[in-house]
Amino acid sequence: MVKDIAQNLGFTALDKGSLQAAVELEDYPLQLFPMWRLPVALAAGLIVFFFLYLLTRSVIYAAVEDGKDTSFKIMVTLANKVIPIVSLIMLALCYLPGVIAGFLQLYNGTKYRRFPNWLDRWMLCRKQLGLLALALAFLHVLYTLIIPLRYYVGYRLNSETIALIKQNKTKPLDTTMVWFTDTYFVTGIMGFGFFVLLGITSLPSVSNSVNWREFRFIQSKLGHLTLLLCTAHTLLYGWDKFLKPSTYKWYLPPGFMLSLIVPCVVLVLKFVLITPCVDRAVTRIRQGWERKPAEQSAPLTLRNGAVESD
Amino acid sequence: MVKDIAQNLGFTALDKGSLQAAVELEDYPLQLFPMWRLPVALAAGLIVFFFLYLLTRSVIYAAVEDGKDTSFKIMVTLANKVIPIVSLIMLALCYLPGVIAGFLQLYNGTKYRRFPNWLDRWMLCRKQLGLLALALAFLHVLYTLIIPLRYYVGYRLNSETIALIKQNKTKPLDTTMVWFTDTYFVTGIMGFGFFVLLGITSLPSVSNSVNWREFRFIQSKLGHLTLLLCTAHTLLYGWDKFLKPSTYKWYLPPGFMLSLIVPCVVLVLKFVLITPCVDRAVTRIRQGWERKPAEQSAPLTLRNGAVESD
Amino acid sequence: MVKDIAQNLGFTALDKGSLQAAVELEDYPLQLFPMWRLPVALAAGLIVFFFLYLLTRSVIYAAVEDGKDTSFKIMVTLANKVIPIVSLIMLALCYLPGVIAGFLQLYNGTKYRRFPNWLDRWMLCRKQLGLLALALAFLHVLYTLIIPLRYYVGYRLNSETIALIKQNKTKPLDTTMVWFTDTYFVTGIMGFGFFVLLGITSLPSVSNSVNWREFRFIQSKLGHLTLLLCTAHTLLYGWDKFLKPSTYKWYLPPGFMLSLIVPCVVLVLKFVLITPCVDRAVTRIRQGWERKPAEQSAPLTLRNGAVESD
Repeated sequence: MVKDIAQNLGFTALDKGSLQAAVELEDYPLQLFPMWRLPVALAAGLIVFFFLYLLTRSVIYAAVEDGKDTSFKIMVTLANKVIPIVSLIMLALCYLPGVIAGFLQLYNGTKYRRFPNWLDRWMLCRKQLGLLALALAFLHVLYTLIIPLRYYVGYRLNSETIALIKQNKTKPLDTTMVWFTDTYFVTGIMGFGFFVLLGITSLPSVSNSVNWREFRFIQSKLGHLTLLLCTAHTLLYGWDKFLKPSTYKWYLPPGFMLSLIVPCVVLVLKFVLITPCVDRAVTRIRQGWERKPAEQSAPLTLRNGAVESD
Repeated sequence: MVKDIAQNLGFTALDKGSLQAAVELEDYPLQLFPMWRLPVALAAGLIVFFFLYLLTRSVIYAAVEDGKDTSFKIMVTLANKVIPIVSLIMLALCYLPGVIAGFLQLYNGTKYRRFPNWLDRWMLCRKQLGLLALALAFLHVLYTLIIPLRYYVGYRLNSETIALIKQNKTKPLDTTMVWFTDTYFVTGIMGFGFFVLLGITSLPSVSNSVNWREFRFIQSKLGHLTLLLCTAHTLLYGWDKFLKPSTYKWYLPPGFMLSLIVPCVVLVLKFVLITPCVDRAVTRIRQGWERKPAEQSAPLTLRNGAVESD
Repeated sequence: MVKDIAQNLGFTALDKGSLQAAVELEDYPLQLFPMWRLPVALAAGLIVFFFLYLLTRSVIYAAVEDGKDTSFKIMVTLANKVIPIVSLIMLALCYLPGVIAGFLQLYNGTKYRRFPNWLDRWMLCRKQLGLLALALAFLHVLYTLIIPLRYYVGYRLNSETIALIKQNKTKPLDTTMVWFTDTYFVTGIMGFGFFVLLGITSLPSVSNSVNWREFRFIQSKLGHLTLLLCTAHTLLYGWDKFLKPSTYKWYLPPGFMLSLIVPCVVLVLKFVLITPCVDRAVTRIRQGWERKPAEQSAPLTLRNGAVESD
């Protein structure tokens, strides 16, 4: 009734539930980053989990099995594993709802049925997920670039050279290794470069100055390219390690393997979606085509609801 | 009189003094960065001072006392000391007026008395001070990251290794040193990371898209965290050097010590302001509470003036 | 006739040719980065050309003349030559139309004659040229900073140290070399720093918040300073190599020499334009002064056209 009066007065009314919800609504303009809460909590949770996981695998394992104290590796070596792992997972989580939505539309055969609530909320915080992943990627780059400046690295290189001289040996040049490590670096650099580009285009003033098709091109095409490059970077880091039994300390796979699960799922699903026959079906659905719209009446009302709420 | 006529015509009149000031006013839209002049002059002054100071302490001292020519260190080694010193001081100067204002409000017992003119002008150029500090911090990062690429550093590492081999010695691994240097790098990286975040949120389009409470959270909370991290980074750089007499060449303390004065003052004062009892008083004043408002009549008129000028 | 009707109705009519052009016009809002096409095509063309050129000079030359396989250098060493070369050329191409326009105005003796079409189109994509050059410069910085992390570089440094020890020699410190290489790095860092500043001020929200004179100051003065620093960086890289016959493999000059042609032309022409006597003439023309306007009648109509089209 109130809604009708308000609409008669020329306002757009939005039913947000009972009067009790008003307390929440009035606090809204003073809330601290409401859109950022879920992504930040997720990032913090992932960081804590992977920190403890890698701590177990490296420091605690070395202390228990070999009796060696390698806790000095926590500050940089271990942190520089946790940060890129969480960054890659969050980047993948940023593109996962998109492919899920694509498959849901294929399954429903229409674009007029509402997505489940959890998917809606997930899709709304994709920007925040991506920006947090970018911040972590930026830290990963800085952590990596200071490696040659570290005291520990200097010590290790020094001991290596001295050991080689004492054994009167020379290290031969393994050109496969050069190709390999260089490709690893280049995929990382290009991935980070495209990631920064994605970040810049998500600035309000920049995203306002491109048209809808350009924005979609950047955030979808370049976004998946970034994910592909970063996944390749991690795959090259691991390479054939997964075949060696020594990799599985206490039967725990290394962290980078766990980090590859979500990105690989996203990339495989995306690959399925862009194969010509599936792509044609999705495009038709997105253009408004519906599979057997006549025999279903329930979705029709839902559809009207969706159109009204738009 | 003119003001009254203008106000009757519906304009907001602002008395800017005599007609002679008109010349200045009309030039205003064509002035080159009027808000940046003071911060740029300050940065230039600090750079020149610290350059000459460190030149005396390192190059001139070495030439006079040991007869060695170390002028080749000017380009990078010396510059990479001057730049972070000035950056840290300017970052601290960015937060100093805030804590001074807090203490002034505590002393006045009201928020309705105007700040002195110099403090007002200082507070208005905080953004510029911070952005210049960020630019210098960015240069400091680049200067630091090219260190392993330098010919001089390659030469030094090479001589060190060769000397170790000739003496048939091996450098032992000092794990305290690893912890120490790694913490030094990590505080630097995190400080720079938050500093970049501060810089991004000061972009007009970004700061327009956050609400007032969020903006204050970022610029105050994250700002002081950045200052704390950068000060810790500098403290870890110096550590126990201040105890050794050899540090004071010609009785001159090293540059990083001078750079720590302002940041430490800001952090101590801020720490006092956020202790529960002081914080409660400041919050009450900022919410409009006044200490003994009845017995004072002079501040009352001032207050009206302040309210009108708002 | 249609135009007249439209103008009578209060619209601004613009003759874009026949009805067939309408197809193109209606697609316009959905075009993908129409302003970026030419600069991207140019960058891609230059990258392919310089990649093949440097491949011939280094990898193919080494394979043919010495029978050595140095193809492992393609990923980083060769790419890190192609990228800065193309970046520098594109930065110079960004400022070349400005100096050509200055000389054209000097030659025409008026600012009211239209520039040729190709120059107009070139001037309109200067921003895109500059941003692509900045992206390449960013990649160049990352490619350079990972050098000490590379396996190949570690191998080379190691062999060098071992060779020195076996010959029982010590590398002497060449202070001229320190000055030289450090200046090379510092010009690069400062050039990149100013380039990033140019990039930030080209963000829509930032460029909207500075006045016209400030924008021109940044994009012209700082832009030419950036070009000067980057050209100096490249000159220091080459230094006296151009004198040695061994530099010209198969009579092909090294890539950096080719990259210096456009920047040097721009800097020389700009230098001529800012000499006091030429500068005075250009300034007078830009303020509206015309050389012998009476005896020419053809330019007069052109001028009216130009004024109308403004």
